Amino acid sequence: MRELRKRMRIGVIGGSSADNRSLLVAYKVGQLIAQSGAILVCGGLGGIMEAAASGAKSAEGMTVGIIPGRNPEEANPHIDLPIATGMGYTRNSLVAMNADALIAIAGEYGTLSEIAYGNIYGKRVVGLGTWEIKGVIKAASPEEAVELAFRGWKAKDSPDNP
Amino acid sequence: MRELRKRMRIGVIGGSSADNRSLLVAYKVGQLIAQSGAILVCGGLGGIMEAAASGAKSAEGMTVGIIPGRNPEEANPHIDLPIATGMGYTRNSLVAMNADALIAIAGEYGTLSEIAYGNIYGKRVVGLGTWEIKGVIKAASPEEAVELAFRGWKAKDSPDNP
Amino acid sequence: MRELRKRMRIGVIGGSSADNRSLLVAYKVGQLIAQSGAILVCGGLGGIMEAAASGAKSAEGMTVGIIPGRNPEEANPHIDLPIATGMGYTRNSLVAMNADALIAIAGEYGTLSEIAYGNIYGKRVVGLGTWEIKGVIKAASPEEAVELAFRGWKAKDSPDNP
Amino acid sequence: MRELRKRMRIGVIGGSSADNRSLLVAYKVGQLIAQSGAILVCGGLGGIMEAAASGAKSAEGMTVGIIPGRNPEEANPHIDLPIATGMGYTRNSLVAMNADALIAIAGEYGTLSEIAYGNIYGKRVVGLGTWEIKGVIKAASPEEAVELAFRGWKAKDSPDNP
Repeated sequence: MRELRKRMRIGVIGGSSADNRSLLVAYKVGQLIAQSGAILVCGGLGGIMEAAASGAKSAEGMTVGIIPGRNPEEANPHIDLPIATGMGYTRNSLVAMNADALIAIAGEYGTLSEIAYGNIYGKRVVGLGTWEIKGVIKAASPEEAVELAFRGWKAKDSPDNP
Repeated sequence: MRELRKRMRIGVIGGSSADNRSLLVAYKVGQLIAQSGAILVCGGLGGIMEAAASGAKSAEGMTVGIIPGRNPEEANPHIDLPIATGMGYTRNSLVAMNADALIAIAGEYGTLSEIAYGNIYGKRVVGLGTWEIKGVIKAASPEEAVELAFRGWKAKDSPDNP
Repeated sequence: MRELRKRMRIGVIGGSSADNRSLLVAYKVGQLIAQSGAILVCGGLGGIMEAAASGAKSAEGMTVGIIPGRNPEEANPHIDLPIATGMGYTRNSLVAMNADALIAIAGEYGTLSEIAYGNIYGKRVVGLGTWEIKGVIKAASPEEAVELAFRGWKAKDSPDNP
Repeated sequence: MRELRKRMRIGVIGGSSADNRSLLVAYKVGQLIAQSGAILVCGGLGGIMEAAASGAKSAEGMTVGIIPGRNPEEANPHIDLPIATGMGYTRNSLVAMNADALIAIAGEYGTLSEIAYGNIYGKRVVGLGTWEIKGVIKAASPEEAVELAFRGWKAKDSPDNP
């Protein structure tokens, strides 16, 4: 297993309920994240979060879920490492904080808060069928979204990285 | 002094730096909030937050500042009651949580996160020269903004309020 | 009303359930805090918190409650200014952060966490029938507790205070 | 690698500075935690946290660090998965929340807050040369501490576990 600490972390953000099309997109995004060697970070609950985590596990990826409740067991079953916060929606800030880049899929105001925090923390935010606003780089497919998330991120173990 | 607990709380959200026109708008909004008998809640720092608090104090209002740092003294001088959180930008969620309605003035991604939280928590969010997105009711003037913030809010001490 | 910002803030910490004797002690402590001109800060719920707030209001003091839930209405009726956090017990840190000194009355592990945070943040922690450990200055009566809480705190508006 | 989600998580709590003897104890505790198959959770910084993480890595364990800052890179180099919170000492509550049992080594008030939270959240708290108070089960050696932490915890994947 490649050293965890050196792997990029990509956050997938989106609502706990979503239409089938968005869930399939999230599954594919999760799969591509895992195949690329990145760790998937998400909010750890259902809907987009679960679909993306499920996709990542289908490709033997690593998944982290930063959940609103205080019991780690509340995370969806595809989360390898649940982090409980007991902070409710306030934890959205921590999801953005713990990703090197974010991919937003569909979503409502929770997703919007994470898009905002991604930008506050200077992370690249890529969007798939989500809020079309300043601060979201629109992608046309899961492949493009993951490619855009990676671009600009320099491998932490590259020789010339301080 | 009318019982504090029964007074509406209006949050004013906006950036810690802003152009002069927006600062004047914030000052006027703060003044109108105080004149209407509501408590002003904000992030407690400079820019729009300080201008609004200054306006509220000019009309002898009450001002609460929920600040990112852990030292209450960091609040701007127009804040009557600073609440330190030590949570940085994560405190934005608490600003929205502690207002019955929000007025957004100008602002960047911090303001966007508060607009998002306002909607997550079911609060009315009124906008003045800010993000023009779903979930923001656009107002044309400070007067209209404060009027819109009040509308729909039912006095907590009205007899038929459960 | 003396300027709020310049008044000392004394935190009263203790459990949401307590025996009658401790509740009476808390009531008296709250009353003395108000009479001394300080603002009472507490966790805003029942038990010791409510008794202290009730005592403070009996002397026309000002009371702030930093509550675990996300709805300010959950504060006890003697709280003038409820601050919702939605963070559960994690908010205990914020109670300590927002007091210039703390008085612990009875209490269990929640109180212990607040005693710990008081010391982390360099605040004086006075105890009445509570944990007898390093970092708690034992007082024999409400009067002594409030007197000890004040001692060492320099009025923020005194001329020689920077 | 045994499924991460089913492994016990043991929190090691203690100060960011400590005497050599305590650091050696922490290293040994970390090593034993890893050898037992549990995940080490800690505050992710120096001192006891780093010594324990270093010990866990010497036995090829998995280490999680829940850090006070908002940049995951601030974690010590022995942390596999840093979780940034940006909440300062307030994050101590989250360390306790994310462990099935806690082992306290030496430490001052930060450690005391984590001992308190461990008890608030109903976790077993074992102590090695730390606060001798109610809520801390005293151990005489690293071996006994890890053994006590495990006792009472039932493997999550055991057949009769609901």
